[in-house]
Amino acid sequence: MSSQAPHSTLLIPGPIEFDDAVLQAMSHYSESHVGAPFVAVFGEVLSMLRKLFQTTNPASQPFVISGSGTLGWDQVAANLTEAGDEVLVLHTGYFADSFADCFDTYGAKATQLKAPIGDRPQQDAVEKALKEKKYKLITVTHVDTSTGVLSDIKSLAELVHRVSPETLIVVDGVCSVGSEEIRFDDWGIDVVLTASQKAIGCPAGLSIVMASGRAIETFKARKTKPTSYFGSWKNWLPIMQNYEAKKASYFATPSPQLVRALHTSLTQILSSPLDERFARHKAVSQKIKQTVASIGLKQLAEKPENQANGMTAIYLPEGIAAAQILPNLLQKGVIFAGGLHKEIATKYIRFGHMGVSVTDSKRDDIDRALDALKSGLSEAGYKAP
Amino acid sequence: MSSQAPHSTLLIPGPIEFDDAVLQAMSHYSESHVGAPFVAVFGEVLSMLRKLFQTTNPASQPFVISGSGTLGWDQVAANLTEAGDEVLVLHTGYFADSFADCFDTYGAKATQLKAPIGDRPQQDAVEKALKEKKYKLITVTHVDTSTGVLSDIKSLAELVHRVSPETLIVVDGVCSVGSEEIRFDDWGIDVVLTASQKAIGCPAGLSIVMASGRAIETFKARKTKPTSYFGSWKNWLPIMQNYEAKKASYFATPSPQLVRALHTSLTQILSSPLDERFARHKAVSQKIKQTVASIGLKQLAEKPENQANGMTAIYLPEGIAAAQILPNLLQKGVIFAGGLHKEIATKYIRFGHMGVSVTDSKRDDIDRALDALKSGLSEAGYKAP
Repeated sequence: MSSQAPHSTLLIPGPIEFDDAVLQAMSHYSESHVGAPFVAVFGEVLSMLRKLFQTTNPASQPFVISGSGTLGWDQVAANLTEAGDEVLVLHTGYFADSFADCFDTYGAKATQLKAPIGDRPQQDAVEKALKEKKYKLITVTHVDTSTGVLSDIKSLAELVHRVSPETLIVVDGVCSVGSEEIRFDDWGIDVVLTASQKAIGCPAGLSIVMASGRAIETFKARKTKPTSYFGSWKNWLPIMQNYEAKKASYFATPSPQLVRALHTSLTQILSSPLDERFARHKAVSQKIKQTVASIGLKQLAEKPENQANGMTAIYLPEGIAAAQILPNLLQKGVIFAGGLHKEIATKYIRFGHMGVSVTDSKRDDIDRALDALKSGLSEAGYKAP
Repeated sequence: MSSQAPHSTLLIPGPIEFDDAVLQAMSHYSESHVGAPFVAVFGEVLSMLRKLFQTTNPASQPFVISGSGTLGWDQVAANLTEAGDEVLVLHTGYFADSFADCFDTYGAKATQLKAPIGDRPQQDAVEKALKEKKYKLITVTHVDTSTGVLSDIKSLAELVHRVSPETLIVVDGVCSVGSEEIRFDDWGIDVVLTASQKAIGCPAGLSIVMASGRAIETFKARKTKPTSYFGSWKNWLPIMQNYEAKKASYFATPSPQLVRALHTSLTQILSSPLDERFARHKAVSQKIKQTVASIGLKQLAEKPENQANGMTAIYLPEGIAAAQILPNLLQKGVIFAGGLHKEIATKYIRFGHMGVSVTDSKRDDIDRALDALKSGLSEAGYKAP
């Protein structure tokens, strides 16, 4: 029996439903941010993140900073680029536009490589772009929250290593870390940035970043100073290193409650093999996608290899608007999200299936959601084939 | 009876002890950041902040962003200054150095006006500085967490309005909002920046800013773009205006749990007249300072008019180090903070007395702390006069 008050099940692509123990950690009594108990917890969080990202290289550096996933973009742009640097942004939806805007703010020149809605830039197009210009870094949205498009990080990283080995590989993993396989060392990634409130399963409020030794060296070799204060690795690097060594350290006050909640969720995630976790997300995602197809609906991401395992973006039938179906689903106790891609926002809905809704066998969130979707569409006049 | 697990009482100058109801709000079940229930709560938080800062001018603009108090500095520097702008930073301890460093990061030229440890720049010195150069803005740390020095914002604002009326007045209220009187409109302040975890009484993780209409106009009249992405008012202004109008809006995902906790703490604070709250903090502070004096100890802030009402920074007796007395106090169930001012860090301790430890008559935090301090010093060999 959950200790949470009864509520509609949150199945948007983040924030997701949280485990009772994680929410209980949020109400931990107040403690000093430089006291031994909290310092130990923060240090363990940083060590656990190494496991989550599958990196054993001691040069890799985790960061946990109060903020949102967006702050990860600032960390990348302000610490790894200098004015005039060229960056290649692979576009799979809403979030590439914003990341490009972030680079622009810090003086880097972002070139966007766009794909049609529901698709992602193909390897040959990326290869061509990398050969045309020397890019300081390339960014890719692992799962685009606006479209549910999955990128193939492993193949992309291989390509970059082959064609432009000096280019840093930056993965926006806000909607993928915890639900999609990420092998930081094996794939040779330089930065993964994410947030707490999606498949990591901890309330929003933390920017989480893993940087490679190469990224840190690039940062240290800057000719100019980092151009953000709050996001500056110059300020945070010694703090993170001290916390992980269980030494108190101060730059800006962290949130002990959020960090304790993250400690709880990471402990839960790492209590089972990560491969099992990813397989479970994939299996549940397959079931959802099959059901969606069986009632005659299409996904934004048409090609199976483009489909995320932690969310599904679904085109609504002709004549049924998101503003009509979402309140109906809410009445049935299920919260889905509306569209986020400007051009087609009213024409699709997004179903998030990450974390405890997928992994906790005591929950029936997914089945209830699929039933609600079917009956909701039927009540709206839709006849499944 | 508190619902919190037994723990040592946290009496550092932030984070402070939190009320049970505030901590319970932290474990609120997951909800959509763009759903009607949360949008209403966020909107009410913004409206309540207007009351807390005593501003009724509709042009004033509150901001609540995931981050720490430090992010408020970035907001000021990145939105209100442009490369080459001159700013005057009044120095009362550790935090002015850091704020100046933040301005430097964003290309503004910070001139620091320093005072001896425990003191603050005098009015005539500020007047002289303002007459020597045209400053875009002046910053003052209302209560310097490193020294417990209180600045007189009302008199300072009068001076600035008289001598350099175009200079924006920026108050670092991280350690003052909620425990010291601030009359945003009456005193003609342009920015107060603060954080959630001190006298506002909500766990760390939120940067809270109130900006005047004049500050917003200055921002809008920029010749160059804001030089931060995550801290940019260009990105946040429409979001805050929408939330306060109870309209869903998205730039970066806020933390529903933290915002709900802030809603709870602000509701509690505003349930009594603010003047009573400030008078209560002052009365308790007086009692603490009298006790400290009665046992022969000196404060860093020697002059009564320089002494904060929410914290006390106390010189230890000759021969007793902070590293010796703090663990002893911890054993007695009371957590004080060590020194933070580089030059004298080991020679003093800091006692925070804000929020429920002061206002909740069911608590005996302050009396226990004073008793622990007296007996702890005695056990360390100190003989009070």
